[in-house]
Formats: sequence, structure tokens, C-alpha cells
Amino acid sequence: MTNDDGRPPAIPMTNPGADRVKDVAKLAGRPSRTRRKQFLAEGPQAVREALKAHRECLAAGGTVVVDEVYASRECLDRYPEFEELAEGLLSIRIASELVLAAMTDTVHPQGIVAVCRFVDVPLAEVLSRKPKLIAMLCRIQDPGNAGTVLRAADAAGADAVIFSASSVDVYNPKAVRSTVGSLFHLPVVLGAEVAEVAAQCRAAGIGVLAADGYGALNLDQLQDESAARSFDQETPESGYWLEKPSLWLFGNEAQGLSTAELESSDYRVAVPVYGAAESLNVGTAATVCLYASARAQQRG
Amino acid sequence: MTNDDGRPPAIPMTNPGADRVKDVAKLAGRPSRTRRKQFLAEGPQAVREALKAHRECLAAGGTVVVDEVYASRECLDRYPEFEELAEGLLSIRIASELVLAAMTDTVHPQGIVAVCRFVDVPLAEVLSRKPKLIAMLCRIQDPGNAGTVLRAADAAGADAVIFSASSVDVYNPKAVRSTVGSLFHLPVVLGAEVAEVAAQCRAAGIGVLAADGYGALNLDQLQDESAARSFDQETPESGYWLEKPSLWLFGNEAQGLSTAELESSDYRVAVPVYGAAESLNVGTAATVCLYASARAQQRG
Repeated sequence: MTNDDGRPPAIPMTNPGADRVKDVAKLAGRPSRTRRKQFLAEGPQAVREALKAHRECLAAGGTVVVDEVYASRECLDRYPEFEELAEGLLSIRIASELVLAAMTDTVHPQGIVAVCRFVDVPLAEVLSRKPKLIAMLCRIQDPGNAGTVLRAADAAGADAVIFSASSVDVYNPKAVRSTVGSLFHLPVVLGAEVAEVAAQCRAAGIGVLAADGYGALNLDQLQDESAARSFDQETPESGYWLEKPSLWLFGNEAQGLSTAELESSDYRVAVPVYGAAESLNVGTAATVCLYASARAQQRG
Repeated sequence: MTNDDGRPPAIPMTNPGADRVKDVAKLAGRPSRTRRKQFLAEGPQAVREALKAHRECLAAGGTVVVDEVYASRECLDRYPEFEELAEGLLSIRIASELVLAAMTDTVHPQGIVAVCRFVDVPLAEVLSRKPKLIAMLCRIQDPGNAGTVLRAADAAGADAVIFSASSVDVYNPKAVRSTVGSLFHLPVVLGAEVAEVAAQCRAAGIGVLAADGYGALNLDQLQDESAARSFDQETPESGYWLEKPSLWLFGNEAQGLSTAELESSDYRVAVPVYGAAESLNVGTAATVCLYASARAQQRG
């Protein structure tokens, strides 16, 4: 028996104990990910973005993003776009819900999972593209917060997101899920040192801004100065034009930025708190800062 | 044996099976909360904000916020402020870590827990205070998202947060935790109907804005018009001055605002997405919208 195109039909995977299933499941752990330079993208939205990135990357002469895709028959029936996205590039293997559950660490597997290759790039590659807006996560521990910052950076049109050496692993399944596909939208640099990134950015003409609740500068001031900029004005009162290419540093959830991290920056900028909140969640602060830069740069 | 002040020393609670412990633990469930009109605030930050609200409320002739506080000896030694905050108002009961773990649903209890009375207020009370900025959660299901919106509203200086009838219960321990104390900072209205809230706000001169990815108006336009407003200008091109008293509607995580909810609004406003992100997390969108209104109102 053959399909219309002459290929034999794929046999659905139904054994959750099969070696191949175990190999995929092992990617929930960091040692396997690091050794194989692969990670899991789970659920329709993440896999869709992974396949789009795969297609675009190959079309541009780049490397493979997705190695394998496993999906339930129901999922493919519901989302026919997956077979279109994969067409000519890779075969989607049909798997039972039990097999998919064994492959992933979610309580409710979402019918589709992709084995992806690491997508991070070196800092030099990011800098070679003349970035205007970069977010750096400094020792951020919570996968959900990392995802929120990455997603906010993506929405604000940032050119890259950099994770410091002791931040959460962005390839951890919880972090991948919380980026909702944004991990495949913009370059990510991993395991970087704050002082080194700041120095290289500064050398590339990029200003280094620390998001710091105790900062001497206020984001409102920077926004107002930028909005009111007159044609020939060289330096604002704050000393910094928000429309300049900028690297934002965001600190650990509990401790904020360390003294050394703050000293790596050119300016310390506070996000105004108008109400009684004692502090901002790092995701909220990053959203406000990155959107403020993006608006100023769009205008400038 | 007596303390310096002549009172007998409190006997630490060490029996996790005691009725009192079970009574506290039951507040993790909605039926008990609803019947007793009480909920749990866990951890130093939430309890601190609860006690501050309790003190301020009583000083202003208002009602009790905190009924009981249980803490480990270690927690009180580490944070002496709790005994100062409670002084003259209520006694903090010392409890073992086992008792605290039995009272709460957290994997890592944080040494202190407060039994609080419901803090929500009627819509009429909010409107009587001439609010300038209100956030409404329309069928938001995730406790973490509800907390992020409440916290962003608090940071933006909003005057109230309203939960629609089918939103997550803000008194659910996960939601309380994710507000990190902001639940005690600003009035909360629960179980409201969107159309009713919109009508009452409109009657009170408050504009109703729907945060909607497909909105005809763009938040950048509203911000630019507001920033460039000249003294005698009556109506901007968009039709809406962002510095006006405003109610923002934020929709369900997966579906956004329903047709009926959109129709309750005066204007549908899109948060710009500059990058490749397909949509914004509701917490991110709420942050950008509420901060935009707050800035315009501060300026206006």
C-alpha cells in the first residue's frame, strides 16, 4: 500500500516506552539538551513559529531549526497548516496522545511537539547587524519572567535578547512555553557576562541603560525629552537621548541588579511608580522600558 | 511565668492536625472563602501589606482587614517589623513550620500567613471617589495574569481594578500571591458585568477603552496627540484624549474581548507591536495601556 505520492504511509507511533520516545523526553533535562544541542517546542503556537523559522532559515541559506515533529492525528486534522509548513522540508510523525504525553513534561500535552536545534547566536553576530534595541536578562531565575521579557522584547521590535551566565536556561520547556514562539523571532545570546556585553555594546555605539528602581534618571523624563527634541539640540538635560541604540539591563527578581551590574551601565533609569506598588515585576518593568525605547526610536 | 508586660507568653502551635489549623487551610477552597468572607495572604510581603492596610483602615474608622496572623519564631526574629505593625491591633500566634505548611498550599511556606477579610468594594463606592483610571479584567482565567494586571494597575496609580463575573477568583491563594501585596493597595470590585460597568462609568464621565489587537485606534496615536495637545484644542483626530478619566477593558488570554465586550466600549485601541510577536500577553498589554494613560493624566 502506498500514498498518492508513492510513499508508504507512516506508521503511527503508539509505544510510549520506545527508545525514540525516551530520547525526546530526555530533552526535558539540561544535560541532554547541552550534549545534543537540541530542545523541545511544545504546542501548536511554538511549533508553528519553529517551522516558520526553519523554512525562512533554510531559504536564506542558514541552518536547520527543526529536526523532528511529532503530532497526533487530531492535531493535524485541526491545524492543516502544519503539513503545509513542513512540506518538502521534513515529515511529521503521527503519534498517539500517550506517546506525546511521554515525550513532554506538560500535564496537558497539546498534540504536537518539535525537536529543535539550539537557536542562540554569538554576541558578535548580533552586533554585526547594527542593533538598535537589546534586552539583557541579568540572573533572572523564573522561566515565566524570562518568557515575558523575551515576548515583550519581540513585541517592542528589539533586535536581540541576551541572557547572563546565571540566568534560567531559555531552552527549559517551561521557558520555551512561556515565550509563546517569540524564541524563534529574534536572536538570543546565552551565557554572557554583563560587563563584557556592556563593554562591547558601548564600543559599538550602543548606550547601556540599567533598569533600576533607585535610578537617578526617570524614564518619564527621558521620554519627554525625546518627544520634545528640537532639530539641533545636541544633549538633553538627562544626558541621554532615548532614541539612541540602547542595551537595557534587567535584574534578578528578588535582588534587582547587583552593584557590579549597575556599574556596567552608563545610566540608571527608574520606571516611575505612580501608585502604592513597592516595586515592579521585572516583566512589567521590561515592558515599559522596551516600549519607551521602541517608541522613541520609531519617532527618531 | 509572664512576659515583661505582664501577659502570659503565647504557647506555640505545633499540631498540624488541630481544628484551628484545618479551619485556616480550608480557605484554600472557594466555598469556605465565600461562606466566611475570608481569604489567606501568605508570605512576608503580602502579610506586611495586609497589616498596613488593616492599620490604615482602622485609623480611618473603617473595618477590620486582618483577623489572624500566624508566623514562625524564625520569621518574626528575621522581620521584627511584624510585631510593630500588629502592636495594639492583634496578637501574632507563633506556629511551627509544620503547622504553617498545613495551613497553606505552597510548597515552600514563607513563615507567615494572615487570615484576611474580603476587601472588595461595590462599584458605586469606586465611582463616588471620582476615579481617573480603572482597569477591568474580562474573563481573565490565569491567577498569574490577574496578579500582573493588578500589580501593573497599582504601579500606574489606577484607582480601582474590576473583575468580571467569570474571571479567576482574586482571593484564590495563587492570585493573592501573584499580586504581591497590591491587592491591599487599591479598591477591587468583583463579579461585575462588563456592560453594566461600562454604562455606569460612561454616565460618570469616564471613557471606556477596549484593549484590542484589531482596534482601529493605535495607542501610539493617542499618546502622541495627548503629548502634543495645544491649550484650546477641543477634539483630537482620534476623537479621544488619553488624559480623560478612563476605564480600560482587558480580555481573556486566549480569546481576547468578546463581541459584546467590545461593543460595550467607546473606542477600540490596539497596542502597537513593532516586532514579529503575534500578540501581546494580557499582562504586557495592560501594562502598556495603563502606563500610557497614567503618563497622559500626570501631564494633563
